[in-house]
Amino acid sequence: MAQPLVFPSTLQASLKPYLPTPSDTRPHVTLTYASSLDAQISLAPGTQTVLSGLMSKAMTHYLRFEHDGILIGANTAIADDPGLGCRLYSEEAGEVAGYDSQPRPVIVDGRGRWQPKGGRVVRTAADGVGKAPWWFVCCELSTLPQEHIDAVLSVGGKVVSLGGERIQWEELMGRLKKEGLDSVMVEGGAGVIGQLLGQARHLVGSVIITFAPVWLGRGGVEVIPDRNGDGKGEVGRLRDVKWLPMEEDVVLAGKLD
Amino acid sequence: MAQPLVFPSTLQASLKPYLPTPSDTRPHVTLTYASSLDAQISLAPGTQTVLSGLMSKAMTHYLRFEHDGILIGANTAIADDPGLGCRLYSEEAGEVAGYDSQPRPVIVDGRGRWQPKGGRVVRTAADGVGKAPWWFVCCELSTLPQEHIDAVLSVGGKVVSLGGERIQWEELMGRLKKEGLDSVMVEGGAGVIGQLLGQARHLVGSVIITFAPVWLGRGGVEVIPDRNGDGKGEVGRLRDVKWLPMEEDVVLAGKLD
Repeated sequence: MAQPLVFPSTLQASLKPYLPTPSDTRPHVTLTYASSLDAQISLAPGTQTVLSGLMSKAMTHYLRFEHDGILIGANTAIADDPGLGCRLYSEEAGEVAGYDSQPRPVIVDGRGRWQPKGGRVVRTAADGVGKAPWWFVCCELSTLPQEHIDAVLSVGGKVVSLGGERIQWEELMGRLKKEGLDSVMVEGGAGVIGQLLGQARHLVGSVIITFAPVWLGRGGVEVIPDRNGDGKGEVGRLRDVKWLPMEEDVVLAGKLD
Repeated sequence: MAQPLVFPSTLQASLKPYLPTPSDTRPHVTLTYASSLDAQISLAPGTQTVLSGLMSKAMTHYLRFEHDGILIGANTAIADDPGLGCRLYSEEAGEVAGYDSQPRPVIVDGRGRWQPKGGRVVRTAADGVGKAPWWFVCCELSTLPQEHIDAVLSVGGKVVSLGGERIQWEELMGRLKKEGLDSVMVEGGAGVIGQLLGQARHLVGSVIITFAPVWLGRGGVEVIPDRNGDGKGEVGRLRDVKWLPMEEDVVLAGKLD
């Protein structure tokens, strides 16, 4: 297993104002991603690109510790096959985050393209190290390969069809709240981030972005939200902004209006 | 005239390692621009968009104070009609930057589209407040409107054709050095920045970018350099990186390898 990560308590304190706050109807949604200077998250579609450094990674695990669920889109699940676990080491407790502190993996996959069987999320759950994933699709469940449904169900996960053509974010978040998640950290990819910065931005409570001092150059996967209305004005400005330098990177924390 | 700007000495000290250092053959080139979170510098081509705050503006004037020349492309000259002057107020000296401290405006305009007559740069020079502009084109001088050549010459400026089809950056920088500029600050626009982050990056000494916590959304003017070679690798990573939070913005200072 990869090594535990320490995130200094001073930096933890700086991020406290952006951590989840309780709400009755929906989970607190924290949108988080790592970007190059030219607003790209990877060198090419389907490619995992490591942009940021070790301290930023430790921060990600701190944020995972502080959230009930961790949500990614199908492209990211397929391209990266991430474990979505929390390896935060608490110096206070003298231990690494245990099972109860692991976030619930939520895979958002309108067209049902994820193939969880044999993947890290399912293996981690089978090993009792991580929580079982919840797999949300729009297509009918009968169109999903049975072996992949079985893989998720066999470790105690859920497979749910929301119906419709595209993910309805309001409905999904309401559902996650009902299922017991009071906070959800969204980690990507570009499609999910674009929708949550665009049409579904009213659902987002906090934004935490890491910038690495690198240009990926034209041809990568950009995070550029669509404009509203006449398409002429800016999409949005963050308020309560804090910039936290972390080694070579900087972390931007803020809230959407 | 717009008000003088104060840039705190502690922030000045933080930027010192990125200020021009002498060289025998070429000016020290500092590349500087203000970007949104989605890597855009304006809402639309030909539009001036104010992204960053007052402290970042004060920093720009501090940098202008520390450079012999200030270089912009024709699109920026046409869209913004900037004065390119330095209004830094020195608390030590108890005064605003005078004529001798003003940077030399350098307009890089391959196709000769700038129309300096009546513009701010020429007016500022005529008033004795700023230095006269140097106008570099590739086209033949005989193709430029005589009234605009006259406007530049009448205030003591220069109009120079470098020949060729596109700006040869190495040649231009050599020329500026010969003309007495030991340091040049490049302020935009996207075309000029893209070339200096791409093919001409070996000429760049320092990079200083301001990020504002805003998304402009798809449709604006992006700063995304072209990739080299096979187009698969990252374009470049900054070294000696420093992130300086300034009010709502952050300033990234670094050097190109």
